[in-house]
Amino acid sequence: MILYSYFRSTAAYRVRIALQLKGIEHSIAPINLIDGEQRGERFLQANPQGLVPALELADGRVISQSTAILEWLEDAHPQPPLYPSDSWERAQHRALCQHIACDIHPLNNLRVLQYLRAELGQSTESVDRWYAHWIQSGFTAIEKAVSELPGPFSLGEQAGMLETFLVPQVFNARRFKVDIAAFPAIQSLDQRALALSAFARAQPSLQVDAPPE
Amino acid sequence: MILYSYFRSTAAYRVRIALQLKGIEHSIAPINLIDGEQRGERFLQANPQGLVPALELADGRVISQSTAILEWLEDAHPQPPLYPSDSWERAQHRALCQHIACDIHPLNNLRVLQYLRAELGQSTESVDRWYAHWIQSGFTAIEKAVSELPGPFSLGEQAGMLETFLVPQVFNARRFKVDIAAFPAIQSLDQRALALSAFARAQPSLQVDAPPE
Repeated sequence: MILYSYFRSTAAYRVRIALQLKGIEHSIAPINLIDGEQRGERFLQANPQGLVPALELADGRVISQSTAILEWLEDAHPQPPLYPSDSWERAQHRALCQHIACDIHPLNNLRVLQYLRAELGQSTESVDRWYAHWIQSGFTAIEKAVSELPGPFSLGEQAGMLETFLVPQVFNARRFKVDIAAFPAIQSLDQRALALSAFARAQPSLQVDAPPE
Repeated sequence: MILYSYFRSTAAYRVRIALQLKGIEHSIAPINLIDGEQRGERFLQANPQGLVPALELADGRVISQSTAILEWLEDAHPQPPLYPSDSWERAQHRALCQHIACDIHPLNNLRVLQYLRAELGQSTESVDRWYAHWIQSGFTAIEKAVSELPGPFSLGEQAGMLETFLVPQVFNARRFKVDIAAFPAIQSLDQRALALSAFARAQPSLQVDAPPE
């Protein structure tokens, strides 16, 4: 498998974590979103939607959209499972993941920040407030549910899909210096997950396309 | 089952369609998002995240986030299936649904438009342009894939999850008078789906909380 990835893409980071958690052999093909490589002819041939992340299977077929990729991994490579086995509990975990994927992240991704600056003429301060607003209101909505997880991880002794969505979102919050002091459960789950090798290896700073420190 | 719904909520509309497609008996409890009923004590007791839609099961347990509800329906009430049976094809359908759920809808929901107006001081024209921009760029990305579906519906003779996400999004586009002439495949799939009774019954204008015409 080949994962088309950008080191700082939140959605690509999710897929990198899941591939590590499931121990699936793969290579990473970096696509530089800042340089617009996702709109280049070479990449569009593999992935006509021009989206990162995209997962290319051994037979050349491609899956895009991180949630679709992650659900496919759970379908096609079920061990270890990243969701609880009970269907209602699975729905609770999916709801938390989707809260991050739909109610936080889309408002803060690169193309939206670019629109705020270029089309709406917003200042850096205004864009930073926008960024913090959606992270803080989203984290406020999920902090209680995260605090009620069994621990130490969302699946008890194992980290799963929730950490796969949460850790990249907390990375973003830190990168943009968003105050997340009001979310101790989220912060401590993030720290426990980052101590696992699967999460450590998927980190942006360790990717081949990350700039040297 | 009880579906907490608001007639014009895109995400609630999705769940209404799926309940109809699967023929699941349920009642609708309207939550007025404009009046802030989602932050009222009565609703927060059932659904602490304060989100609409939420599905309350017969035993009182609640699921929120439309994608989590829809995946749970597919898990717990598998007939008729709303996704293809092949796992790779299922991933393609999920990717299109998630494109709508993550790359279009979150940018255009009520709280975001309110932020643009109240916090960023944007004019009606500017907010309308924002709205149209994300619908048009999202529809541009999926039009080709929609045009390549087998037809007449996404699952051949049956409508499924793709129409469940697409029809409410097209409803929004029309409501905000967004020009969607460039997307004939999306428009015609929407029209074919709306001719089915499941989609017709789930329409905003037919909900108990819709204002009289």
